[in-house]
Amino acid sequence: MASSSHAIKINKVGSSGREPTSDLVAAEEPLEIRIGLSLPGGPAVHSISVTMRTPGHDEALAAGFLFGESIIRGADDIAGIEPCGPAAPETGNRNVVHVELAEDVSVDLGRLQRHFYTTSSCGVCGKASLDAVRALGAGSIKARTTFPSSVLTRMPRALRAAQAVFEETGGLHAAAAFTTDGELIVTMEDVGRHNAVDKVIGSLLLDGRLPAADLGLMVSGRASFELMQKALVAGMPLLAAVSAPSSLAVSLAREFDMTLIGFLRGETFNIYSGEERVVS
Amino acid sequence: MASSSHAIKINKVGSSGREPTSDLVAAEEPLEIRIGLSLPGGPAVHSISVTMRTPGHDEALAAGFLFGESIIRGADDIAGIEPCGPAAPETGNRNVVHVELAEDVSVDLGRLQRHFYTTSSCGVCGKASLDAVRALGAGSIKARTTFPSSVLTRMPRALRAAQAVFEETGGLHAAAAFTTDGELIVTMEDVGRHNAVDKVIGSLLLDGRLPAADLGLMVSGRASFELMQKALVAGMPLLAAVSAPSSLAVSLAREFDMTLIGFLRGETFNIYSGEERVVS
Repeated sequence: MASSSHAIKINKVGSSGREPTSDLVAAEEPLEIRIGLSLPGGPAVHSISVTMRTPGHDEALAAGFLFGESIIRGADDIAGIEPCGPAAPETGNRNVVHVELAEDVSVDLGRLQRHFYTTSSCGVCGKASLDAVRALGAGSIKARTTFPSSVLTRMPRALRAAQAVFEETGGLHAAAAFTTDGELIVTMEDVGRHNAVDKVIGSLLLDGRLPAADLGLMVSGRASFELMQKALVAGMPLLAAVSAPSSLAVSLAREFDMTLIGFLRGETFNIYSGEERVVS
Repeated sequence: MASSSHAIKINKVGSSGREPTSDLVAAEEPLEIRIGLSLPGGPAVHSISVTMRTPGHDEALAAGFLFGESIIRGADDIAGIEPCGPAAPETGNRNVVHVELAEDVSVDLGRLQRHFYTTSSCGVCGKASLDAVRALGAGSIKARTTFPSSVLTRMPRALRAAQAVFEETGGLHAAAAFTTDGELIVTMEDVGRHNAVDKVIGSLLLDGRLPAADLGLMVSGRASFELMQKALVAGMPLLAAVSAPSSLAVSLAREFDMTLIGFLRGETFNIYSGEERVVS
């Protein structure tokens, strides 16, 4: 089991002065994601990304990342995933993950080299970013799934209760997939918000649960364009965030007929898009 | 002036039901950073990065990003910075910024193509990430600058007071550079935490204020490896965060003799590294 937090010695400063104590901090280490694929000249390995992440669920993270970037289109595109590389000296974590693609999968390596993220193909405006998402094959969400208000307002507490490492460290973002009954199907934590979402979606992918037209995505922080795009690619009709959405997250939600909830706190929340999926 | 927030129509849901209202959301749009440089064959332009950012202070963002990635080493490496590209249809923002490098600046384009971020050159472990930072020329912080506890505990309130857009939208990260007297020299906001820090450091760079051995860096959220690295490259001896640091942020601070403050709330905070710079 990867270690998700470290105990360290610190000084706590308060009204009574300075006191040495010990504290748990959320683990952050680099993860390199590699893909193996068949080319006319023989097998090849490409390094796709290095992301700073909290160790644990690296296979799900890699699968979710590749899916969100439209490098793979489904679980069938994966022949195998395994950690590789040496164990890191202090933690024992293995910080390279190799994703072997199925033989018939072709990857536009030129696109990967040109730009890292799907939507980086546009340096012009938000509208162009939305066009880029559509050009990669994402269509509007058709699912008319509805979520009761009472289920939504329960989610932040449920997410917090499921956040094992946050309780210890106070330092992690969380994301979860939940049903219309309010059941958390998958909960993941990470120092990076996008990683937490990649882990959730990658886990659903590996379990054969995508597209997830019947699930909502809950995130512990803000809703950005990037997170909204990941939910869209996974076919999830609703994203709920504890904090504020950005303008482009709202634009994406409206353009692709998704429901976007923000400021989900206590008994109140804001609906930025797709209000018909929220029922009393 | 770039528009940093948008007014949109939303539905607010509370105990008294659903109410249509209007809301301000933080603007998020892509910014493409290009560099112009002199090559033996003539002038060339390279697209370096596309980042999702809140429009405004794009020149500072570009300068801070290039400096943090060690693509430039100082303000003298910049011959000029200007926005380019067409005005975005809805907002009028120009979302490409061109940084013309001075004639004698050489850039390792191979490194840029191989990996996006400085420290991505290692897929192995946290230790290797620290080594990569050192390999790029960063040395331990020598400055013995001290900050009174009372200045540190005032910072979160001061930062919030200076956050114009956050007050409107609740949706932005903030970063600020502050003196040992608690004066905020530069405050910046962005949907991306790393962008807010790039804007602060880029602004200091363009003002000829780097290395900033006499300033602390305050951030509204968590302290990650990446933010710590940016402070280090800027020569700032102290980073203070409202929330938790990650394990690798702590390692970097200790390795490079920096002061790292976390959970800075009310009258209390934790010192994770470099406690000798904090005085009563």
